[in-house]
Amino acid sequence: MTLMDYGARQKRLAASLSAHGLDALLVTHLPNVRYLTGFTGSAGVLVAAARPVFTTDGRYRQQAAEQVERARVVVGKGPAMASAIEVLRKGRYRRIGIEAEHLTVAMSKVVAYELGRHGTLVETTGLVESLRQVKDAEEIRLLRQAVDLGSRLLPVLLKALKPGATEVSAAARLEFAARERGAEAMSFETIVAAGPRSALPHGVASQARLPRRGFVVLDYGVILNGYCSDMTRTVCSGRATSEQRRVYAAVLESQLAAIASVAPGRSAGEVDEAARAVLREAGLDRQFLHSTGHGVGLEIHELPRVAARQKDLLQPGMVITIEPGVYFGGKYGVRIEDMVLVTERGSEVLTRAPKELLEL
Amino acid sequence: MTLMDYGARQKRLAASLSAHGLDALLVTHLPNVRYLTGFTGSAGVLVAAARPVFTTDGRYRQQAAEQVERARVVVGKGPAMASAIEVLRKGRYRRIGIEAEHLTVAMSKVVAYELGRHGTLVETTGLVESLRQVKDAEEIRLLRQAVDLGSRLLPVLLKALKPGATEVSAAARLEFAARERGAEAMSFETIVAAGPRSALPHGVASQARLPRRGFVVLDYGVILNGYCSDMTRTVCSGRATSEQRRVYAAVLESQLAAIASVAPGRSAGEVDEAARAVLREAGLDRQFLHSTGHGVGLEIHELPRVAARQKDLLQPGMVITIEPGVYFGGKYGVRIEDMVLVTERGSEVLTRAPKELLEL
Repeated sequence: MTLMDYGARQKRLAASLSAHGLDALLVTHLPNVRYLTGFTGSAGVLVAAARPVFTTDGRYRQQAAEQVERARVVVGKGPAMASAIEVLRKGRYRRIGIEAEHLTVAMSKVVAYELGRHGTLVETTGLVESLRQVKDAEEIRLLRQAVDLGSRLLPVLLKALKPGATEVSAAARLEFAARERGAEAMSFETIVAAGPRSALPHGVASQARLPRRGFVVLDYGVILNGYCSDMTRTVCSGRATSEQRRVYAAVLESQLAAIASVAPGRSAGEVDEAARAVLREAGLDRQFLHSTGHGVGLEIHELPRVAARQKDLLQPGMVITIEPGVYFGGKYGVRIEDMVLVTERGSEVLTRAPKELLEL
Repeated sequence: MTLMDYGARQKRLAASLSAHGLDALLVTHLPNVRYLTGFTGSAGVLVAAARPVFTTDGRYRQQAAEQVERARVVVGKGPAMASAIEVLRKGRYRRIGIEAEHLTVAMSKVVAYELGRHGTLVETTGLVESLRQVKDAEEIRLLRQAVDLGSRLLPVLLKALKPGATEVSAAARLEFAARERGAEAMSFETIVAAGPRSALPHGVASQARLPRRGFVVLDYGVILNGYCSDMTRTVCSGRATSEQRRVYAAVLESQLAAIASVAPGRSAGEVDEAARAVLREAGLDRQFLHSTGHGVGLEIHELPRVAARQKDLLQPGMVITIEPGVYFGGKYGVRIEDMVLVTERGSEVLTRAPKELLEL
């Protein structure tokens, strides 16, 4: 039914648990649960241990039976977490990891209380996430499909960008086409930010109308078979001014320089600096308000962070975004973003869509 | 620009903080931040105190200036939380509440560490959520609009339910129409679960095709101006069998009985029991796999929980779902759901769509 190698993933996790002196890990972050077992529902917990156990509630009995691999499935009367605590109590584990970046303070107290003397909770961060940042072959195949779908949707979106149309109506056409072509959902709220709204780094599509002249930032992604895509293009309604052209060219140059710097062994911070240096040279670095990129996979924001001073080294199989942007509050903004696979020799740009300035 | 009475909300919160002996509350859950300030972005923290301060990062400078009411806005160089910690350090608060059901274990440790001896963190649960469960007049107006939009979309969805069409293509048509009519997004992943998939309580639309005969569960909602709608109808492709008719009638009777039981002063558990009692009488209670309903507002799942043994008393202004369902694994399922406003005298069903069994 699936080509995902859940066994290999759990084996890598087991090695990590062992290295951290843990007898079990209470996996509560749903993308991590999915990564390790294949379960796609909204309520499930994995007790990762020598004999992994997945727990859920009655609503997901059938779905868990169909989907979950490499773990015994327990469907309790109560919530998934109550069943997981029961599994932990019976499991005689000594040191039990929790996902401290996901488990809430309140829930961790409940777990500790219910567990009593049946084990000690140990805070962990990023154990599964650090495995997830290097994609395996099947994940790369699915990511390519998601990115391809995203790229192929750009013409649909461009066609909907008529002066006078609302941003949200253009977004609606894009999202309809995405769903029709198999996307489960968009990977985040679609950004269509026209005219002065293009200066909002997160200008989600609004009832604002597309102007006759000015930049339009288009930033969107699809979720296809669980994997996210993410891309940004900035187009111009009417003719761009010479200043706008200069800014666009600088952002594009910055983006290409960052892509060119991607290679195994490079730090994520070096890639960020490659983007930033070009904008600094152009006198635009103070308008670059965010980091250069982030990993993408089952979640839209994953490790590694491609940001200033990040020392994590890029490895083959990582999939990251490269998305420098420049914003003049109240006036306009430009951002260009591709998804990039780190390969053995350097990188491969997955996004297939032109980047020259397009004037509509 | 807005009719929301953020001042009144913050005043109610201040009374609650005072009652809990807190000098400030670190509000990190974004729907709570929005409820108290109007900010709709994805990164912002509110330090609720005598002089409230809202912090965000550079990406949201313009948006925060436009949206945030009743709080001073601080845009730091780093993340919103770093700025909020700085505000806490300078604020000389002694007892600082955290939202224990939302703040992660890892983040709470960072806050405690950075705060040092500049205050003591106190775990709180549901301080803002308990205010939010009783909607004010403007919220009820917006909820009515969201529910109305949801109701008006049902014919669009029904029209797309042609035998042979995929579930997801029908969902795509619904979602397109929702976006075109102003919805920001759907309030959860649309459920179109046909034939045997109708037995999945959370059967999100898949590539499965609509059969010539069998139930189809349709469960969807829109987000309009930030407020969620939620409704479910079960229709039949072709003629229903007599057994299917009997089950449908029992679920409808259960739903109507639960609605009839809604009134101020009733407990949420009594409403749940009203739904359950009808199904018990019909010999179907063991197939009712979930609770009867939940509050709805800025989030799709809010307080109160309408579930067995819930002692919370209903109050005028609460908006809840009533959604009993019956599921025969591998065969079929039926669920019927409306949104209901608790009024001074009883209740008002907000959802406007027929509930008689519809055979397509």
